[in-house]
Amino acid sequence: MSIIEISGGVCAPKGFKAAGIHCGLRKNRTKKDLALIVSEVKASAAGVYTSNLVKGAPVVVTKRNLENGVAQAIICNSGNANTCNSNGIELAEGMCALVERVSGIKAEDVIVASTGVIGMKMTLDPMEQGIDGLYAALGNNSEDANEAIMTTDTVKKSVAVEFDLNGVKCRIGGIAKGVGMVCPNMATNLIFFTSDVAISPEMLRAALSADVKSSFNMVSVDGDQSTNDTCCIMANGLAGNEKITKDGKDFKAFCRALRHCSVKLSKMIAKDGEGATKLIECNVRGAKTVKMAKTVAKTVIKSSLVKAAMFGADANWGRVLCAIGYSGEKINPLSIDVEFASKVGKLLVCRDGYGVDFDEDFAKKLLSEDEIKINIDLKLGACKAAAWGCDLTYDYVKINGDYRT
Amino acid sequence: MSIIEISGGVCAPKGFKAAGIHCGLRKNRTKKDLALIVSEVKASAAGVYTSNLVKGAPVVVTKRNLENGVAQAIICNSGNANTCNSNGIELAEGMCALVERVSGIKAEDVIVASTGVIGMKMTLDPMEQGIDGLYAALGNNSEDANEAIMTTDTVKKSVAVEFDLNGVKCRIGGIAKGVGMVCPNMATNLIFFTSDVAISPEMLRAALSADVKSSFNMVSVDGDQSTNDTCCIMANGLAGNEKITKDGKDFKAFCRALRHCSVKLSKMIAKDGEGATKLIECNVRGAKTVKMAKTVAKTVIKSSLVKAAMFGADANWGRVLCAIGYSGEKINPLSIDVEFASKVGKLLVCRDGYGVDFDEDFAKKLLSEDEIKINIDLKLGACKAAAWGCDLTYDYVKINGDYRT
Repeated sequence: MSIIEISGGVCAPKGFKAAGIHCGLRKNRTKKDLALIVSEVKASAAGVYTSNLVKGAPVVVTKRNLENGVAQAIICNSGNANTCNSNGIELAEGMCALVERVSGIKAEDVIVASTGVIGMKMTLDPMEQGIDGLYAALGNNSEDANEAIMTTDTVKKSVAVEFDLNGVKCRIGGIAKGVGMVCPNMATNLIFFTSDVAISPEMLRAALSADVKSSFNMVSVDGDQSTNDTCCIMANGLAGNEKITKDGKDFKAFCRALRHCSVKLSKMIAKDGEGATKLIECNVRGAKTVKMAKTVAKTVIKSSLVKAAMFGADANWGRVLCAIGYSGEKINPLSIDVEFASKVGKLLVCRDGYGVDFDEDFAKKLLSEDEIKINIDLKLGACKAAAWGCDLTYDYVKINGDYRT
Repeated sequence: MSIIEISGGVCAPKGFKAAGIHCGLRKNRTKKDLALIVSEVKASAAGVYTSNLVKGAPVVVTKRNLENGVAQAIICNSGNANTCNSNGIELAEGMCALVERVSGIKAEDVIVASTGVIGMKMTLDPMEQGIDGLYAALGNNSEDANEAIMTTDTVKKSVAVEFDLNGVKCRIGGIAKGVGMVCPNMATNLIFFTSDVAISPEMLRAALSADVKSSFNMVSVDGDQSTNDTCCIMANGLAGNEKITKDGKDFKAFCRALRHCSVKLSKMIAKDGEGATKLIECNVRGAKTVKMAKTVAKTVIKSSLVKAAMFGADANWGRVLCAIGYSGEKINPLSIDVEFASKVGKLLVCRDGYGVDFDEDFAKKLLSEDEIKINIDLKLGACKAAAWGCDLTYDYVKINGDYRT
């Protein structure tokens, strides 16, 4: 089965429209701050949420609305995370009610999300005034919706693919905001998928849960975990495929297409990490278990010292070895190989836990590229995993030193 | 019982001499790189080491030498961590043999430590040439030894106290190097204590283990954990107190004095965190267990976003709440109070999980001080803990972006 990338974002699948406007939650009038995505018909829906015990009010409301596995619209604002506000639930429910007022879609079929500063008072007023214009703007406008959910993101993150289920063309589209698994105060990662595949809510939930574990959950910018992280999907069935209701060939094909989209957005999120100048991919193989591979990959990606070395294009492999050593996994220090790679080539820097001689000039050249791979072989088993992150730069500190003002 | 701070560092207790010289491990001739601390007589001794599975060779040798609870000297170099070298054990044993050669103290009674770059080849040559001069320089020279163990440390970290055990004056002295629990590649935290207290090796070990858990283990600069972290103590009994061989009044008094020294050095290490401009102390109370209090305090201290906000003097309490939420402890988000404090005053910013109105100008003034407290009340129980860290600054990135060159 082939997966072909197409344009259109969340509007690529049949029966979906989107819009994004500036309603006034942000002072900057040139920055859109309210997004809406609507399906023509009711859709199977599923969500995965932050595990932070301090949760944004929208997460609580969306979770409840998706209990029956059905949704038809997504509303999302940026500029305020609606978190740690005493009337937060009321506000999140109010946003759903606004969608019902203009579209007739029931409030309990609406997914709601917010991103911005935590603990800042919020009112519905700007959204009440903007909702008619937002609804009127619905169309093939995935990019507007994408812009409206951004905070410190510097690029829009969008994907869409077409694939084949038993002779029927199907599509998945997605938009994301986020600068890592990273920013509590920015209520960071929001990912919204749409699809025209016919699939039961149960199987959609299974697909999304499995997918997130090896994609978005493997992204780290600074190890902080947001209060508002949310990844949702609506699948409305308009492609006309035979409905997926159990595991099998079609389900696996759908999962592969979803994974293609998730990995692509994950890399975009990692590369756009706050202040980042390069994408770092850590590939671990030879692990005893997938858990071991994942833990080691994430520990390396999260190490401030590894990240700072990558910023400086410094082949400081000792820091990689050190991070592997404190990952908590029972690795064998004397069976570890480490290799750096980028588009200019590969360089083995450590074999069986000891350094090997290498050309420092070539290392510098290799690490000066904007996409770096750290390949680790633990030589203990056959399991592998990948994680994505970015370098640690002056600008990360600058962006986060005074975010609220 | 009163604990009085005195001068003299590791030479303050009776019967200890120290020296520090430049032997040539470092290219910079103005930077001392080899330290020696010697006791007149054999001493009870104990050590606590990194839990990183990638361990420096000196850690392996010191651990073995301290198995019998006896030592008489400490030798330590900076400039090279002697880690991930295939002949590392041989080199570490060689350093102990050099001490035996000049002093007659048996090699197996020597504590050895190294700090510097990981995975860089090392030879004994400069130390072989320097050892006679080092031994000849032994005297009341705690400061020279302190300087010789520094890497990116910007200040010497030294402490000494005098206290009373049943009418007998006793002393503990200590020197430390380290810029957090932080730097794998700098083989970071080394702490050497001396004491003239008479105490059995078993009780000395018990005192040190308990002490480290609530002092040095509660310091974090960036969450990275070194391959070479070592904290050792020698107690030679020359004070003449009745030997401590079991728990009781004297043991508790000794532990209190040791804790005084450890907390003081911990704060100095945190404040000297790489690039740091301020010391952050996180006090957690109202926890159900001490473990809960410690975990929450360390999670807050380690959050890059909290650290960056402190650098910017930004009262962004949402980030504190968020870090508490992802600590992994079962806190109740709706029973958390957060207060910022410094020498200019205190400021409650969050009550029962929701923001309270506060004066932003006063907050800025309060957070612009160089010692900040983040006080958290979880209101779930009676346990408490403290952790120490520093802010995240441009200079941290600068120092670590190209450490090897």
